[in-house]
Amino acid sequence: MLVDGVPMRTIGFGADGSVEVIDQTRLPLDLVVRMWSTVEDAAVGIETMEVRGAPLIGVAAAHGVALAMAEDPSLDGLGAAVDRLTATRPTAANLRWALQRMDDALRPLDSMDRPGAAMALAERLADEDVAACQAMGDAGLPLLTAIAEQRVGRPVRVMTHCNAGWLAAVDWGTALAPVYRAVEAGVAVEVWVSETRPRNQGASLTAWELGAHGVPHTLVVDNACGHLLATGQVDVVLVGADRVAANGDVANKVGTYLKALAADANGVPFHVVAPTSTVDHRCPDGAAIPIEERSPDEVTHLAGRPIAPLGTSAANPAFDVTPAALVTSLVTERGIVACTPEGIATLPR
Amino acid sequence: MLVDGVPMRTIGFGADGSVEVIDQTRLPLDLVVRMWSTVEDAAVGIETMEVRGAPLIGVAAAHGVALAMAEDPSLDGLGAAVDRLTATRPTAANLRWALQRMDDALRPLDSMDRPGAAMALAERLADEDVAACQAMGDAGLPLLTAIAEQRVGRPVRVMTHCNAGWLAAVDWGTALAPVYRAVEAGVAVEVWVSETRPRNQGASLTAWELGAHGVPHTLVVDNACGHLLATGQVDVVLVGADRVAANGDVANKVGTYLKALAADANGVPFHVVAPTSTVDHRCPDGAAIPIEERSPDEVTHLAGRPIAPLGTSAANPAFDVTPAALVTSLVTERGIVACTPEGIATLPR
Repeated sequence: MLVDGVPMRTIGFGADGSVEVIDQTRLPLDLVVRMWSTVEDAAVGIETMEVRGAPLIGVAAAHGVALAMAEDPSLDGLGAAVDRLTATRPTAANLRWALQRMDDALRPLDSMDRPGAAMALAERLADEDVAACQAMGDAGLPLLTAIAEQRVGRPVRVMTHCNAGWLAAVDWGTALAPVYRAVEAGVAVEVWVSETRPRNQGASLTAWELGAHGVPHTLVVDNACGHLLATGQVDVVLVGADRVAANGDVANKVGTYLKALAADANGVPFHVVAPTSTVDHRCPDGAAIPIEERSPDEVTHLAGRPIAPLGTSAANPAFDVTPAALVTSLVTERGIVACTPEGIATLPR
Repeated sequence: MLVDGVPMRTIGFGADGSVEVIDQTRLPLDLVVRMWSTVEDAAVGIETMEVRGAPLIGVAAAHGVALAMAEDPSLDGLGAAVDRLTATRPTAANLRWALQRMDDALRPLDSMDRPGAAMALAERLADEDVAACQAMGDAGLPLLTAIAEQRVGRPVRVMTHCNAGWLAAVDWGTALAPVYRAVEAGVAVEVWVSETRPRNQGASLTAWELGAHGVPHTLVVDNACGHLLATGQVDVVLVGADRVAANGDVANKVGTYLKALAADANGVPFHVVAPTSTVDHRCPDGAAIPIEERSPDEVTHLAGRPIAPLGTSAANPAFDVTPAALVTSLVTERGIVACTPEGIATLPR
């Protein structure tokens, strides 16, 4: 998408074979492109959330495998890289999916062929992600145009959570892809951006990317979202997903469940937008999804400064589970399906 | 309650007739007692939230009237003081209730009698508030002991929102009064403290006062509360209120409604603890309660530093409305009532 009028992607190979990523920990104040030279750079970059967002984590891990193959293309090197990258984040399904694809493709090859094949496949995963996000945008666009037709004369008011825009993918994004498609199609859209404590991806990333692309938006604290939904100020909620279980339960950034409850209580549609690689058919339901517990420092501090008494104990679950019954539909690159066991079963494994 | 073993109140008259308050904008890092010499000091102190919390706002406004009477005890002086203080915060019912009591008592008096009477009545309101909070603690205590009896061998896990502890009142607090009573009675209690963006009263005030009093507690971001309630980690939710309508709808700090929805969805009792002065019998329902809109800077900045791109527009509703149907009961200084029109009607006007 556009940054100051210039198209950008979140990740790609540099001329020297290193990996270049937008360092999302530096946004919104600084746009910094970071270089990863080794698989350890990539693993640490995923752990410290230089890159984040379920689709981008998968593509970034694939690029990390390519860096590993340039160092040590042996089967041991491949196995070590996959193990190291798998351990970076526990919740996102795309990470495992992308690493499995890399492993399946590279394992049968001769060592000397692995470096080139790894780069080519990592680039192919990136291109496939862009195409999938564009397809999710096309699939979700009619949800917004239908609202626009009912509500002539004022913008469609979308609420989102965390960042499921192009910064969470390679380009276009998941939940925000229909928004960008709507803007292209001349549909007036306004976005409620919720801050998304503890890491503030809404305030720092979603507000930044919407602003850079010229999409009208208003920032609110997470606590305000129930009030906005209850007072008729939201037409539709669009969120991404980190993992969708076989029964349709959805793990996404912590706080998603509260928005789903409030949308349901007030008759506002709540759509999950995610590629089919996010669906974990082997995971029966939300209770089986591991929920990452991150450092308490993210809760007790903000931008390095304490916001609670020193020594305060804190808990920091990074995701929550939204029961399938609260999800109006699942928007994928293959179209819209019901977020039910029957709907999920129609998606590729 | 105790601070480093020493009992303190949030407000009182100094020897020279000035008003001494704990400056809550300086907590949790500094405990600073501020002096108000004029009614304007008091009004600005309420507006800038040096003092906050519905019960304390009412008592602080009464002390502000006393400062005004020391300056100008005429009827004009009284009217101007009441008008200035009424304009400070729109949502809390106690502010209007306390100012009405001061006006009713002082208006019939000779000017020369007003200064002394105003001080005496402000002190009486403070003492009444302490007694009411103690009574709310006594009324709410059985709710916690009943849980303790069912769950022998582990603490009662209370979730609260914002600060409805002793810092929100003169002493004891509202939602936390039953917690302090339980601790006194030897009942093991642990408190989930939600940060409460945008002003972080949970992180800065509730964590501080529980820590100072030695009550075990764990801080979480507001977004985490749905996950905690859905995964069986909370036995009961206790919150305060800024205004209760005649039908039982409750206005409280923004984000309360989301906790109420999640408690309801997971079968966890959700009690509102508030003095009867919080009930506005003339207000038919939640839709009629004015919701204060505060500065967008509270959303876009934290501790003076930007967390969003410069120029990001933000909305900042400070309260939300929890429908009566989501409230298990209303705990008052007169005992526990159903949060229904019939229950509310039993409370004094």
